[in-house]
Amino acid sequence: MSDKKAKTNTSKYVYYFGGKKADGTAEMKELLGGKGANLAEMVNLKLPVPPGFTISTEVCTYYYSNKQTYPKDLKKHVETSLAQMEKEVGAKFGDSENPLLVSVRSGARASMPGMMDTVLNLGLNDITIKGLIKKSGNERFAYDSYRRFVAMYGDVVLGLKPQTKDDIDPFEEILEAKKHARGIKHDIELNVDDLKELVVEFKKAIKDKLGMDFPNDPMDQLWGAIGAVFGSWMNDRAKVYRKLNGIPESWGTAVNVQAMVFGNLGETSGTGVAFTRNAATGDNEFYGEYLMNAQGEDVVAGIRTPQPISTLKEQDPKSYEQLLEIRKILEDHYRDMLDIEFTIQEGRLYMLQCRVGKRTAFAAVKIAYDMVKEGRIKPKEALMRIEPDQLNQLLRPVFDSNAKSEMLKTGKLIAKGLNAGPGAASGKVVFNAEDAVDWASKGEKVILVRLETSPEDIAGMNAAEGILTVRGGMTSHAALVARQMGKTCIVGCGALNVDYKARVFKVEGKNIEVKEGDFISIDGSTGEVLLGNIPNKPSEVVSVLINKILDPKDAPIFQMYNEIMTWADKYRKLKIRTNADQPDQSANAIAFGAEGIGLTRTEHMFFGEGKIGPMREMILSDDTESRKKALAKILPLQRTDFEGIFKVMDGRPVTIRTIDPPLHEFLPHDETGQKEMAKAMGVSLQKIKERVESLAEFNPMLGFRGCRLGLIYPEITEMQSRAIFEAAVNVKKAGQEVFPEVMIPLVGNVKELKNQEEIVRKVADDVMNETGIKFDYMVGTMIEVPRGAITAGDIAQVAEFFSFGTNDLTQTTLGLSRDDSGRFLPTYVAKEIYDIDPFVSIDQTGVGFLMKHAVKAGRETKQNLKIGICGEHGGEPASVEFCHSIGLNYVSCSPFRVPIARLAAARAAIKDAIAEKTKDKKDKKGKSDKKDKKDKKSKK
Amino acid sequence: MSDKKAKTNTSKYVYYFGGKKADGTAEMKELLGGKGANLAEMVNLKLPVPPGFTISTEVCTYYYSNKQTYPKDLKKHVETSLAQMEKEVGAKFGDSENPLLVSVRSGARASMPGMMDTVLNLGLNDITIKGLIKKSGNERFAYDSYRRFVAMYGDVVLGLKPQTKDDIDPFEEILEAKKHARGIKHDIELNVDDLKELVVEFKKAIKDKLGMDFPNDPMDQLWGAIGAVFGSWMNDRAKVYRKLNGIPESWGTAVNVQAMVFGNLGETSGTGVAFTRNAATGDNEFYGEYLMNAQGEDVVAGIRTPQPISTLKEQDPKSYEQLLEIRKILEDHYRDMLDIEFTIQEGRLYMLQCRVGKRTAFAAVKIAYDMVKEGRIKPKEALMRIEPDQLNQLLRPVFDSNAKSEMLKTGKLIAKGLNAGPGAASGKVVFNAEDAVDWASKGEKVILVRLETSPEDIAGMNAAEGILTVRGGMTSHAALVARQMGKTCIVGCGALNVDYKARVFKVEGKNIEVKEGDFISIDGSTGEVLLGNIPNKPSEVVSVLINKILDPKDAPIFQMYNEIMTWADKYRKLKIRTNADQPDQSANAIAFGAEGIGLTRTEHMFFGEGKIGPMREMILSDDTESRKKALAKILPLQRTDFEGIFKVMDGRPVTIRTIDPPLHEFLPHDETGQKEMAKAMGVSLQKIKERVESLAEFNPMLGFRGCRLGLIYPEITEMQSRAIFEAAVNVKKAGQEVFPEVMIPLVGNVKELKNQEEIVRKVADDVMNETGIKFDYMVGTMIEVPRGAITAGDIAQVAEFFSFGTNDLTQTTLGLSRDDSGRFLPTYVAKEIYDIDPFVSIDQTGVGFLMKHAVKAGRETKQNLKIGICGEHGGEPASVEFCHSIGLNYVSCSPFRVPIARLAAARAAIKDAIAEKTKDKKDKKGKSDKKDKKDKKSKK
Repeated sequence: MSDKKAKTNTSKYVYYFGGKKADGTAEMKELLGGKGANLAEMVNLKLPVPPGFTISTEVCTYYYSNKQTYPKDLKKHVETSLAQMEKEVGAKFGDSENPLLVSVRSGARASMPGMMDTVLNLGLNDITIKGLIKKSGNERFAYDSYRRFVAMYGDVVLGLKPQTKDDIDPFEEILEAKKHARGIKHDIELNVDDLKELVVEFKKAIKDKLGMDFPNDPMDQLWGAIGAVFGSWMNDRAKVYRKLNGIPESWGTAVNVQAMVFGNLGETSGTGVAFTRNAATGDNEFYGEYLMNAQGEDVVAGIRTPQPISTLKEQDPKSYEQLLEIRKILEDHYRDMLDIEFTIQEGRLYMLQCRVGKRTAFAAVKIAYDMVKEGRIKPKEALMRIEPDQLNQLLRPVFDSNAKSEMLKTGKLIAKGLNAGPGAASGKVVFNAEDAVDWASKGEKVILVRLETSPEDIAGMNAAEGILTVRGGMTSHAALVARQMGKTCIVGCGALNVDYKARVFKVEGKNIEVKEGDFISIDGSTGEVLLGNIPNKPSEVVSVLINKILDPKDAPIFQMYNEIMTWADKYRKLKIRTNADQPDQSANAIAFGAEGIGLTRTEHMFFGEGKIGPMREMILSDDTESRKKALAKILPLQRTDFEGIFKVMDGRPVTIRTIDPPLHEFLPHDETGQKEMAKAMGVSLQKIKERVESLAEFNPMLGFRGCRLGLIYPEITEMQSRAIFEAAVNVKKAGQEVFPEVMIPLVGNVKELKNQEEIVRKVADDVMNETGIKFDYMVGTMIEVPRGAITAGDIAQVAEFFSFGTNDLTQTTLGLSRDDSGRFLPTYVAKEIYDIDPFVSIDQTGVGFLMKHAVKAGRETKQNLKIGICGEHGGEPASVEFCHSIGLNYVSCSPFRVPIARLAAARAAIKDAIAEKTKDKKDKKGKSDKKDKKDKKSKK
Repeated sequence: MSDKKAKTNTSKYVYYFGGKKADGTAEMKELLGGKGANLAEMVNLKLPVPPGFTISTEVCTYYYSNKQTYPKDLKKHVETSLAQMEKEVGAKFGDSENPLLVSVRSGARASMPGMMDTVLNLGLNDITIKGLIKKSGNERFAYDSYRRFVAMYGDVVLGLKPQTKDDIDPFEEILEAKKHARGIKHDIELNVDDLKELVVEFKKAIKDKLGMDFPNDPMDQLWGAIGAVFGSWMNDRAKVYRKLNGIPESWGTAVNVQAMVFGNLGETSGTGVAFTRNAATGDNEFYGEYLMNAQGEDVVAGIRTPQPISTLKEQDPKSYEQLLEIRKILEDHYRDMLDIEFTIQEGRLYMLQCRVGKRTAFAAVKIAYDMVKEGRIKPKEALMRIEPDQLNQLLRPVFDSNAKSEMLKTGKLIAKGLNAGPGAASGKVVFNAEDAVDWASKGEKVILVRLETSPEDIAGMNAAEGILTVRGGMTSHAALVARQMGKTCIVGCGALNVDYKARVFKVEGKNIEVKEGDFISIDGSTGEVLLGNIPNKPSEVVSVLINKILDPKDAPIFQMYNEIMTWADKYRKLKIRTNADQPDQSANAIAFGAEGIGLTRTEHMFFGEGKIGPMREMILSDDTESRKKALAKILPLQRTDFEGIFKVMDGRPVTIRTIDPPLHEFLPHDETGQKEMAKAMGVSLQKIKERVESLAEFNPMLGFRGCRLGLIYPEITEMQSRAIFEAAVNVKKAGQEVFPEVMIPLVGNVKELKNQEEIVRKVADDVMNETGIKFDYMVGTMIEVPRGAITAGDIAQVAEFFSFGTNDLTQTTLGLSRDDSGRFLPTYVAKEIYDIDPFVSIDQTGVGFLMKHAVKAGRETKQNLKIGICGEHGGEPASVEFCHSIGLNYVSCSPFRVPIARLAAARAAIKDAIAEKTKDKKDKKGKSDKKDKKDKKSKK
């Protein structure tokens, strides 16, 4: 857009703001930068803004594409605007009586705090200083401003600054010498003479070191400062910042030249910053702080403590009332919470800056919601203002924030890991799942600490308040299960050295030893591990939704959550399902709004009460007959599991995956466990060891698992299908609807699916015939190896639905084991090989390519093929958006992510609609452009 | 084509053969089937063929698309042809004096031996039997023919046959009862009355069991038989056979009706089969066997022993001379070795069948070669007649075939594994690499038997005659290294229970124990493991090429090999490179015709003399400095390795892959090895154990390996690059050319490659600056994970070449660990999920999709991007053909596969040219068709 303007409107380089109307508006950020555009907007809103002008970003672009020169008319335009400022302020640039002083500031389209240069008090010299003294009646103030200006200009514009990290700032050096000579400590103790001397000494240093005179002519100063600001667009800091934040170099910066106002002209002057609402809580209250007789720098320096904004009511009621009014005007106008800067000069209020304010996650949700209630914005806009992950603040248990701060201050933070399961948990350390169950049954709160977890640990994880592991990534077993359970969890906390035998862990590089039974607290939202017991409480939403505790004080937040979700559901196109293996998880998910189950991992069930025995018996079987005998024992147990889920889901679709992991996962790998198993099953330890050995694999991820199990042992698929369908019949008999979707994992070839599908359908027919009860069901597959995606067109001949298993699809597409990637993936992300951990957010280039191909090929075969995703990505906002964009029907995620997915899906749909509108406009424009051309042609 | 004809030429259903010219030709196999077309061709060649006619395959198609009815004119056409036969033979169908008897046989386009039905002696009934008796003067012969006909007709046409496996054949039952009643054992002992009674009893059985009379009218018999033959096209056997052999159902079968001739009419009659050349050796000699006074059945029954064809010269010199002449006519005409069937009826020779004969691999090569020398075919045709794998027969050591047969007969075959490294080897069993080296150094021949091999075993594998492993597939470490070394190797021989401690192996299910030092023999071409020492010898070609032993008796075969390779090189478009890590392997490969090295695995070098120590020191290093110190020790050793290879390759391109395997592969995993290492390195056993533990991975295949190592430890890439380039400089200094291509493995993201490429280029610049010597080189990458293929367009921005690593690409695309697939892949291939082990031949649908995408995307970025393949597939003919078809520049394979790849590449190019020609013709035809239409239109 700016490019176009550059071509069509080359004569306008300078935009004046001041008087009754500015040349610019808030909409013109591309041209004027954020600061300039908002200054213009405030002028238009008739707010008191010191006048000034903005040199547009086009000049910056021109500057860099024309060997750092300016458009030829720029000088004239600047002079005109300056004259207008002089007139408005009633002062003159360079005047010895009533000099105009200005600030020169950068201002890019996106905020780049501290990255570029600023010069204040510009216009001071040995002549104008007199005017400033006269005007302010404060010689010390005037010389203090002068010496600051010379140092700032010397540094920023002339480049007299430390050349290496070890160098001392040349001006600082002189200042320190002066203070030393005078035997004083603080700048404030310098007297007028000291300051005068400093001005001279600073200028001398510039002359000595740079061989040039300090420019006395204010116009020279001004052009120097403008050049410096444009120059700072390409300084190293700014380049790095842009790269990190994805800001294109081509945007350029604007330059804002504005009349100086002073908050340090005595007790009726002051300066402050404020938010139009509480940025921490979102509460609708004016919130900020100020200092009288001070400049912005003083607030930052921290020597004096600013006062809360409310006290300004007493100190300067007029300004305070004016601020309250401005607050309302701004919020009415911007329809958002704003961050403002103001200065009071001798009782007169000036606005120096306004912009949309940063806020905490909770505040973001609350402000967006409140603004809908206040009629300022529409629900759609509110949804676009809430980052889905911010919803976590409404769902997760939280630490008492004062207690946690206290702990952090007193050095109780001992390590950091990956924030795998958000929330807060405190409890006594236990080192194994059995102890977790034991202790919890005695009413103890425990944190389960493990090197890593395995399916055998599930009961212990469920009993614990939180889980902390040394190894593993964001989609490790611990992370995955914890999220599904809604447990607070930290994984990959490599600094812990766990000694299971001694029942202690030490912290690498620290002299800390935590024993079994010691209290720790873990913050699953930040990955922090702290010593001691920090009080925490479940979120209001969870209290109401999950714990069914209807405390009236929780009602407003619950109401807010509920309405936001209702809005989201109105817009989203994606259905939201959940990954759940147990009735209670399923119930939680429904409470959070799940519309079905996208993934039930049947193998988790095998670790339940009484099931692991027959399972192991099956694995030890040497022939089909004994395998069938063992499976027959599992059948009724698994049927009961499915019944429980079907009942809770009450007719909603339930996708059940047939057994997936390699069989050795069901056997104990340590000798103790093997001995117990041998005893329990009445077989020799040798036999168990041999079987464990023979099932061991080099790369289990790519081994004998998924549908390969069912192909070699069809009796497993038969048993599981029977359990599913008999459960369906039983639930139907009891009067409820059921809709099972049987999902075959790890299919890479349609023939694999065909083989398993035939077994499933045969069992379904058998069960219907045996019971005389009909039920609907589907058979589909996971797409989780590249070949499955590649041959999706063939697979869709058989599959009634696809579900992307993006965990495994990521592992295979990238050739990257999630469990082993800890050694190099952090470096990879740090070196920007991958912008984000591909196990956290879908790798849209690689994995996404295969997904798009599979969707296209699958639907070419079967137009209405139902397609979803059940990998962990299904609850990650960027991935949800991607799934929406490629036309999936649903995403499935862990129960506690369901609200987040609902919001993400709504936002994706809204973005789509906006893009569509923009496209329509462009198309219309394109058409009319064409028409114009045609018309022109035909006129020729 | 037949479809088209069906439309354009519907009136011709029956093709007569006999007299001077047949209606058909050998070209018309689609319409007449193989048998019918060749019978027609023999008639056209004026060979003595009993007359007859062929009902075309179109009738079969008609039959099945019209509810099993015939075209209305068929009856008329059959009757006309039958009349022509009667005239030519001088006999009449159904005649009581001189009856015409016929055979009715199926004949599809492709040979389907024994799958479909045949009826002989058709036309016999109680009337015509009299004529047969009169004509033959042999009542027993006549009734024997009659009872055989009734039984055959009853079975084939009327369907009186066993219904289940356990049923007895109804006719056999009657026959047995008869013999039992007569107290005789053999059919031959039945007298005329017995045979007469059998005819009656057979007919009665048909009446009793089927409720129908046996058809006496020969025309009814004929139509019944024709219907039965068409019907047999859809019997279960035929369906299964077609499915297994990829024969489309739509082809249909033809029906051949031919006048019967009898080889059992006394001592001047006889029957035989022959090959125009020796099908075993390929020697140009007439080869076959015959029986006087016999029919084909008798030869098959094996009661009498046939005589070698040469003795016919004495017994029936006229027929023998005639056969020799026919042999020449047929070979001249067909320009190939043929398989013929003939019958002599009372001194008169008849040809009943001719077709291209099956032959051994060696004979295939020799016949094709000889026919070029004889001027019968062109080199191009010879190449198309030699299956590339047949060349192995010229290259591999072979067992003395008599000695091996003897062993097989005496039960010395103890197990079978996968034929991973073709050839023959005998030796004493050893169970570890050290023993193999020791024993071999004392002059013993040894077979190394291991559960599986690892890089530590390389010296032992090299010292052994052959390698036998219990685990692993066709691309396991053992298989891969063995092929590269040209060693005989069997892998995945799961029936062996190896006990390293006791130094024995037992064979599952057999009472056999083989101890260290016992002799075994392994056939790497068949996977057979035999007890004892079978003599074997290296192939002639290897004697000359590799062993440089110029025995004159080897000259002819070597000459043949050499010429065939010269022909192949003329046609092929693909370059052929080799995978070699050592100078001697490289020299072998060049001897076999390699034009460069496509893959040098640098990690194999680390196991060489003196290198494993510093390598382990590097792995134990805790910081960059000590890692660099260790690497500095490896540098000169690795440089020497590269110099050796560069010298041998003498300017040919050498692709060197930077370190690829996970570091733990370089550490000992057993306690003994770890203790030794601890002692050697002067560190604690504990430290080594810890490092082994910390480097352990869940899925090493997807773990910390490939370019990931170089990204985290750039100093490794630096050292390797330096070794490569310093070696290049040294070899250049010595006056030879060098062209190294540095290949970065496991790249899935262009940024990975960029990172490593910068390191390589910097080292190259450094070395050039330091030495003042310039050299050319390239930097490229392996495409071996799906993401690499998907983003090939980006990767080609940096890569100067691609090399497909199809081993790993197959593992990741299919989600299939080659080392773990042994448990289910055989079942998968057996169940036809995959037609062929995807580690043996490229999975063109899945992996091929990614390869095609990568070639296209890569060349879109860089038009002339050099692309090759260095996976094990590079030496497999179907894969080579695929690589040709997608436009690769070269394939790289193990040295001993180079000749096979050369031939496969030539065949691919020739096939292409043929397809191109056909396309051109079609295009021209298409154009002229269009032209015709246009012309017609314009005429209108």
